[in-house]
Amino acid sequence: MYEIACAKVARRPSPFCWRSRMALAHKGFDVETVPAYFTEKDAWPTPNTGTVPIIVDGDRVVGDSWAIAEYLEERYPDRPSLFGGEVGCALARFVQDWVETVMQPGLARLCLLDGLRTLTPADQTYYRNTREPRFGMTIEELVADREARLPAFRASLDPLRRVAERWDFVCGRTPAYADYIIFGTFQWARIVSDFETLAGDDPVQTWRGRMLDLFGGLARCALAYGS
Amino acid sequence: MYEIACAKVARRPSPFCWRSRMALAHKGFDVETVPAYFTEKDAWPTPNTGTVPIIVDGDRVVGDSWAIAEYLEERYPDRPSLFGGEVGCALARFVQDWVETVMQPGLARLCLLDGLRTLTPADQTYYRNTREPRFGMTIEELVADREARLPAFRASLDPLRRVAERWDFVCGRTPAYADYIIFGTFQWARIVSDFETLAGDDPVQTWRGRMLDLFGGLARCALAYGS
Repeated sequence: MYEIACAKVARRPSPFCWRSRMALAHKGFDVETVPAYFTEKDAWPTPNTGTVPIIVDGDRVVGDSWAIAEYLEERYPDRPSLFGGEVGCALARFVQDWVETVMQPGLARLCLLDGLRTLTPADQTYYRNTREPRFGMTIEELVADREARLPAFRASLDPLRRVAERWDFVCGRTPAYADYIIFGTFQWARIVSDFETLAGDDPVQTWRGRMLDLFGGLARCALAYGS
Repeated sequence: MYEIACAKVARRPSPFCWRSRMALAHKGFDVETVPAYFTEKDAWPTPNTGTVPIIVDGDRVVGDSWAIAEYLEERYPDRPSLFGGEVGCALARFVQDWVETVMQPGLARLCLLDGLRTLTPADQTYYRNTREPRFGMTIEELVADREARLPAFRASLDPLRRVAERWDFVCGRTPAYADYIIFGTFQWARIVSDFETLAGDDPVQTWRGRMLDLFGGLARCALAYGS
């Protein structure tokens, strides 16, 4: 699996790649990861859509985290299910829509400058040049008032908070792909920043702790901020 | 099924009751509905938790829309599934958490005064006395700036909008319980108010239209605002 790497090559920040790392572990696979850089896309396997993660499974190359999850589910139906059926698959996609329209933009406004600083100098330039036009502002401006934005970000997690107060995982008694989608975004923040995105007594912390414990502490052992 | 009725008795506004009406239709049941009033709870079947919907199925009395959905799924497993399995059930609950923390409070700030006015005089007094202390303001104050709040409400529907641009239903190719949870709240607004909560070209309108068409137009034919 090809995944974005930082200046410190063992640091792997991408929330999309974490979705797939967790999905592969869920299906019981040991994965060889290959560092990928935005500015060295020529080194990525083809065909690709210019984004990572990309997995190479024998002679199959699959890119895009959602496509990878669908591929794994279809190709390895006898291993633990990522979606739990068609309705579960559709609703996992709703969770992804929520993450990408609410949670991820909110967290970007808290930690994106920290994230930028972890990249190689060349990737930092690439990232700025491609993202700042989309935001309509510099990344410094994007995070300038992050302390003031924190309460609204925490409030935006209310649906997840209700889940965490009730059940062990978003998908119920055991985790599945919708958990990994949400977790990937938290894992990005954890890996690039020491900013406290959650209050210490937030039930969401408990859920996140369970996610870090999965698969022998796969995500907990990843090179995080400060390490 | 007992459901809240308005001063005009054929008008049935409750979003929670609409979840169960649609769930019962999904399971293929013809339902006899009984009007219920907040101020006449002595007339409701027992045991109850002081809320409707309540269904009476032979000698079983089940209250609370979520409990009713779980009951129907367990009691009638051979009829079309509301959840599509355990993961689908857990994720439907996440959708409910999103509806109850984001969509429903947002829509209340647009249409709750309209909703209040549809109730019987006695129920209006009851509703004010129980809800206004929770809001910390009068219902008039709650909706005072509704025009100004409309853009933020519409933006809060972004996850649903992405679904509507991609698939026919939130649950995929066919509707299931998560669709009914979201729809119930729109149906409440439609039944009590003529306020335009969605822009005319919003893809969410298309999804809502599909929901109104289900089960022979069950929800479309319900007594709505102005009728």
